Amino acid sequence: MSKAKIVLATGAFDLLHYGHYRFLEEAKKSGGKNSKLIVIIARDKTIKKRKGKKPILPEDQRRALVEALKPVDQAILGYEEMNVEAVIRKIKPDIIAVGYDQDNMRRIVEELLRKGKSRVKIVQIGRFGSADLNSSSKIKRRVIEEWR
Amino acid sequence: MSKAKIVLATGAFDLLHYGHYRFLEEAKKSGGKNSKLIVIIARDKTIKKRKGKKPILPEDQRRALVEALKPVDQAILGYEEMNVEAVIRKIKPDIIAVGYDQDNMRRIVEELLRKGKSRVKIVQIGRFGSADLNSSSKIKRRVIEEWR
Repeated sequence: MSKAKIVLATGAFDLLHYGHYRFLEEAKKSGGKNSKLIVIIARDKTIKKRKGKKPILPEDQRRALVEALKPVDQAILGYEEMNVEAVIRKIKPDIIAVGYDQDNMRRIVEELLRKGKSRVKIVQIGRFGSADLNSSSKIKRRVIEEWR
Repeated sequence: MSKAKIVLATGAFDLLHYGHYRFLEEAKKSGGKNSKLIVIIARDKTIKKRKGKKPILPEDQRRALVEALKPVDQAILGYEEMNVEAVIRKIKPDIIAVGYDQDNMRRIVEELLRKGKSRVKIVQIGRFGSADLNSSSKIKRRVIEEWR
């Protein structure tokens, strides 16, 4: 019997939608039977720094809602200074699942692999369906169109 | 050993937030150990008729995301003509959990009880925390303020 695999996924998960859920479901599946899915939630400060805007929902609520999803075993707030290497050292994942729009994360992990600093396997998860409204920014646009 | 209780909850669950999740968690708990929580999701047409606006997210995505939450055993789309009596006849719940803002649903069920058409127990679930952003309309306002 092989050891249950740990899968790591990351994201902001602001305005949770069906695409997020499907991503997490596929991430969990990528680890096979009995895998454990741990999700790192981007901190409010990290998002503000990267996108110039705070998320709509605060980090503690984003974290709790992701952990409430069936495929998720644990959701944890990230470091305020995003540090993928430190996260990998701490969580020791077998697999890192990256979303179709997370090429930046993919590149960071690939760089760590090249430097021999990790042996983690990268799995990129596809986009789901027509992606209609399976995107936080599309949902925001829709809110603005409907309510102005 | 007593039979596991069926708890019924209803709602639109547009832009899912932490308050929705806490409501569903408490609803499930109200049925005790091994309870089964079934959630009826309001149809797009019903919401349009009642609020004058379609929801942001379509009914199939709202349904799937609610069913993805840990406390939820099953999420089902409602009838297009909202019909609480027919739903109760079909689901046969022991308990109907109503949210702090669902007085209308509470009154409909109380009326059925008065007419002897149901023996279901009503449990009203409180509001959670400061309710800051635990409300779909507050989230929408926040999106508009941030993005215009």
